[in-house]
Amino acid sequence: MQLQTTPDGFSLLLDDRVLLRHSAAAPAIYVGHGQERMDMYRGNFEIEDYITERSALRHVTVEGSRISFSQAEGMAPRLEMTLAGTHIHFRSLDNSINRFWIRIQAEGDEHVWGGGEQMSYFDMRGRRFPLWTSEPGVGRDKTTEITFKSDMAKAGGDYYNTNYPQPTYVSSRRYALHVESTAYSVFDFRREAFHEIEVWAVPERIEFHSAPSFIELVEQLSLRFGRQPELPDWVYRGAIIGLKDGMNSFSRLETMRAAGVQVSGLWCEDWVGIRQTSFGSRLFWDWQANETRYPGLRDKIVELNEQGIRFLGYVNPYLCVDGSLFPEAEAAGYFAKDQLGRTAIVDFGEFDCGVVDFTNPEAAEWFAEEVIGRRMLDYGLSGWMADFGEYLPIDVELGNGIDAKLMHNAWPTLWAEVNAKAVASRGKTGEALFFMRAGFTGVQKHCPLLWGGDQSVDFSRHDGLVTVMCAALSSGLLGNAYHHSDIGGYTSLFGNVRTPELLMRWAEMAAFTPVMRSHEGNRPRDNIQIDQDPEVLSHFARMTRIYVHLAPYLKTLSKEAATLGLPVQRPLFLHHEHDRRTYAIQDAYLYGRDLLVAPVWQAAQAERPVYLPEGETWVHVWTGEVYDGGQMVTVPSPIGSPPVFYRKSSTFAETFKALAEI
Amino acid sequence: MQLQTTPDGFSLLLDDRVLLRHSAAAPAIYVGHGQERMDMYRGNFEIEDYITERSALRHVTVEGSRISFSQAEGMAPRLEMTLAGTHIHFRSLDNSINRFWIRIQAEGDEHVWGGGEQMSYFDMRGRRFPLWTSEPGVGRDKTTEITFKSDMAKAGGDYYNTNYPQPTYVSSRRYALHVESTAYSVFDFRREAFHEIEVWAVPERIEFHSAPSFIELVEQLSLRFGRQPELPDWVYRGAIIGLKDGMNSFSRLETMRAAGVQVSGLWCEDWVGIRQTSFGSRLFWDWQANETRYPGLRDKIVELNEQGIRFLGYVNPYLCVDGSLFPEAEAAGYFAKDQLGRTAIVDFGEFDCGVVDFTNPEAAEWFAEEVIGRRMLDYGLSGWMADFGEYLPIDVELGNGIDAKLMHNAWPTLWAEVNAKAVASRGKTGEALFFMRAGFTGVQKHCPLLWGGDQSVDFSRHDGLVTVMCAALSSGLLGNAYHHSDIGGYTSLFGNVRTPELLMRWAEMAAFTPVMRSHEGNRPRDNIQIDQDPEVLSHFARMTRIYVHLAPYLKTLSKEAATLGLPVQRPLFLHHEHDRRTYAIQDAYLYGRDLLVAPVWQAAQAERPVYLPEGETWVHVWTGEVYDGGQMVTVPSPIGSPPVFYRKSSTFAETFKALAEI
Repeated sequence: MQLQTTPDGFSLLLDDRVLLRHSAAAPAIYVGHGQERMDMYRGNFEIEDYITERSALRHVTVEGSRISFSQAEGMAPRLEMTLAGTHIHFRSLDNSINRFWIRIQAEGDEHVWGGGEQMSYFDMRGRRFPLWTSEPGVGRDKTTEITFKSDMAKAGGDYYNTNYPQPTYVSSRRYALHVESTAYSVFDFRREAFHEIEVWAVPERIEFHSAPSFIELVEQLSLRFGRQPELPDWVYRGAIIGLKDGMNSFSRLETMRAAGVQVSGLWCEDWVGIRQTSFGSRLFWDWQANETRYPGLRDKIVELNEQGIRFLGYVNPYLCVDGSLFPEAEAAGYFAKDQLGRTAIVDFGEFDCGVVDFTNPEAAEWFAEEVIGRRMLDYGLSGWMADFGEYLPIDVELGNGIDAKLMHNAWPTLWAEVNAKAVASRGKTGEALFFMRAGFTGVQKHCPLLWGGDQSVDFSRHDGLVTVMCAALSSGLLGNAYHHSDIGGYTSLFGNVRTPELLMRWAEMAAFTPVMRSHEGNRPRDNIQIDQDPEVLSHFARMTRIYVHLAPYLKTLSKEAATLGLPVQRPLFLHHEHDRRTYAIQDAYLYGRDLLVAPVWQAAQAERPVYLPEGETWVHVWTGEVYDGGQMVTVPSPIGSPPVFYRKSSTFAETFKALAEI
Repeated sequence: MQLQTTPDGFSLLLDDRVLLRHSAAAPAIYVGHGQERMDMYRGNFEIEDYITERSALRHVTVEGSRISFSQAEGMAPRLEMTLAGTHIHFRSLDNSINRFWIRIQAEGDEHVWGGGEQMSYFDMRGRRFPLWTSEPGVGRDKTTEITFKSDMAKAGGDYYNTNYPQPTYVSSRRYALHVESTAYSVFDFRREAFHEIEVWAVPERIEFHSAPSFIELVEQLSLRFGRQPELPDWVYRGAIIGLKDGMNSFSRLETMRAAGVQVSGLWCEDWVGIRQTSFGSRLFWDWQANETRYPGLRDKIVELNEQGIRFLGYVNPYLCVDGSLFPEAEAAGYFAKDQLGRTAIVDFGEFDCGVVDFTNPEAAEWFAEEVIGRRMLDYGLSGWMADFGEYLPIDVELGNGIDAKLMHNAWPTLWAEVNAKAVASRGKTGEALFFMRAGFTGVQKHCPLLWGGDQSVDFSRHDGLVTVMCAALSSGLLGNAYHHSDIGGYTSLFGNVRTPELLMRWAEMAAFTPVMRSHEGNRPRDNIQIDQDPEVLSHFARMTRIYVHLAPYLKTLSKEAATLGLPVQRPLFLHHEHDRRTYAIQDAYLYGRDLLVAPVWQAAQAERPVYLPEGETWVHVWTGEVYDGGQMVTVPSPIGSPPVFYRKSSTFAETFKALAEI
């Protein structure tokens, strides 16, 4: 980075890009003080800030690579920044500062992507994104009735709410910016001339990355945040079937296999048993096999394994007070404490839980070894949903003594680390597969697979099928190579239920993602299930065969992910950066370099338009029709034939061509 | 006011009350800079502020009654404040300042009332109130379906939205504070230790008023802001009947009179003719009698007058482009201009209008003389609804050269002044009666009667019948002695229609207000009308008789208003200030000192609880039952008998006693 001083300021350049420009009249940094109000209700936050001070730091003193900032000449410096390579380190010289704003130079036609796993907007320009791990909300669109009703239960959410925020963005100017801080932060991309970053603390540092191409930039980021291992081999055998029907799950699995469904795993989240509440069936949050709901499960798992099918379960970082693990953890002091030093108890809706304190190394070790290691891996599980991570209450006392408001965002990564450590302890890294919805900076290093969280069972713009693509693309740019989602969506509320069409459209998108996994949803009985409708079942079976057919190709993508850090699902611009028409596309993606997938994400779409990037010749998979790139084409998209194209020059062309026969 | 200096600050006391307390560590004043976004859609505003600077002015220099503020010792002063009597004058010493915050000392158990005409919360403590004249919104409660649907049309509103804001409050510490500024401002009463006032400009001054009692305080305020004349004598004859049915209005009036309805006036807002739009019938905004809709109206008015009935019309400050007055006003340059110097055109929904520029004295004079004087008063009108006043677009150019953002709040008062001037020009002050919903500081001096705006036709907490009481009480404390409302409410949307019960409950409240006036509502045909249901009609007729029976009492209240500035409808605490249990009551009021009215404002209330202030003996009007004050009592409240009590020792006791016989 290059520092250029001016009479009353400086500019900071990265390979000729001006990133910071400071003068007394147009300062780059503001500091101040705020008093926040943060109310959590079951993972949903109501956050309000009362800013009592925001001061421009107009005066700077530059000494070598160190710049001191004060409000005016002659006043005491309040902040110091030091340049080191492409990093800017910050040091507060004033204890009263708890708000920090920095303005990064922007260009009019600049696009920005990232922010963690964003569900609504891939290109973040023009909007403001608070970055705070939470429930993403139901509906997530203030103009819809479902969001309104959910908001009445404090759970409606908005476009920026996500389980996995990350204060990192990639700019079309071919640089990336990362804020190293776990504090609440906001990326504000609404201004023409600058991006404003707000942090509720003076951040440790801001990192810049730059590269001549997007691909190289993404490679860098994936090295910075950590790479995932390749997918386990067993995954390629087919879909992971999600059933939570007790012992019926096994016979239902057989029915599906008999219908031609290719299966790699059976996922029963109810393996821990259930609890009846007025809301309906909930899982029993005590992480071990439940003999009542699954008698002889250990043997059943062995039987399944012999048929080439793995068994997956469920775990989250809480322990219910009426489970057998709670007293053990409490006696050992493994839980986060309340203000009076007692075990902090969190209400999850008619049952209470303790929060295992992962900042206490012994607690983390115990959870990894005794819970996940011994009761899950040793029992025979090959994977699990590692649920939650977003709910750390902001008023608990933690073992490391750090304010829970600062640990809240850090929690998903700690949670991922506990899971990864357990897997590694059994030598099963790259073999056991857990998947998470929550995340934050560094989750990449530990979590082998993201899942897109709890979409609504519909085609809605901000909470339906289409959001999963945005999630895969945004998180993928930041080093999360593997993404997948609940086939058919999850959340069914206020009479909103799955249609067969939705289930089929979702499955045919999932066939072109790293992992196919079905879910019965939050209300299995109110919603159609794959095995309940012959048309849906046969469509699903075909999609699993497509997935398996593509396995050799997917393996090469998985290798690329491990060696280069490239995500399996990629924005079109990643391989077509000179075609700016690709920059805003978020409802189509490249599946590796060679396949372009444009899922149907609305109801009753007999055809859909697809933009084909220029400089390539594209072949429509189902008809074999050939198209020049650089144009928008509209192709038929009946159920079973979502718009998918391959590069004519692909080395996998024959494989792709054969898809039409499946 | 008393100024006490301390080593690093000062305190400002008013008769022993500490109002301002300043020290370097806890400064009283902040200044800074913001960039607002204000989008208007048909009188509804979406307002957002981007605060780029907020600096504490920690350092003060006191010289006599002048105090200079700077951020720190040695820095240039940015603001100067001068004490003059009970006023604090401010002067900005820094042109960059466009945001100003001041913290007024507060007490834990303090109550605050006022803020103009507030619809939702009489006691403002614990909440934040932006003060900006606008549509009040439909529903005004983010938890209701109607508000949600209205919000989708940008018209839902919130608790603080009002046609008539005013930056003035009355504190239970027996002082009042008034901010002399027309800029957008916010009263924030959410903090325990201070009230924070935010103004989007450095205000000219802040005035304090104090008195040993609330009554004396209200008298002072009414002197400060202006007093209304007594009610015209003709009003006491009965209700003003609102009909907008063309010539049918006359026969319908006859039917009502035949049913025993006491009538003082006929109010036909459609006297100007109508215009059909896809929304329904709208008025023709060209302010003169329409021969098509009302042939021979002038003679009809004379006929009515001979029967002791006045005729009232409608006017607002716009002129439609297809009316006859528009070209005249445009040729004379009487309209506000757009940025290119052309007549600014405002879309009111399928028809366009010009905005008469009341900052141009000639335009104001023309409107008063030619429109209201000649075409309304001289034609025979005895009153009118002087509608609107809240819609001044913030991007027009005005004759006085002042930013429309600063004139927006001032507009209602200018509009009132034009009306008052017209009335005065005909020597009809106190005789012609116009009524307004919009207001701001100083409207008191010009507008003889407020009306509560457009409530929904329901019992809802934030937009129904009950809000009218809050409106009367809050505006009444600030010198608006006369308030009334549309009997039965106005806004009927999304299938929300009047019930006979609502219409009757509203009428029986209105009988105990200065003016009874009915309204057919925005959708007359979808909603029940008084003359359509025998039970409703006979109930209404009785209520007009009650109103007329109370006229001698009301006349004494009107005299009190003119001589002392006391509102006709008064909060209970005004006469019972030592009984703090009265401080939070907003769904009952004193009608003068001697009647306590507790209208039924919810559906199906066969009885309701009422708090009777201590130190008096109260008689229940309908049963004659006697109660000691200082207790909550529950009395039957069948339709026709809303809870009303009188002071046993009242000189009007016999009059009140006779109410039970009507």
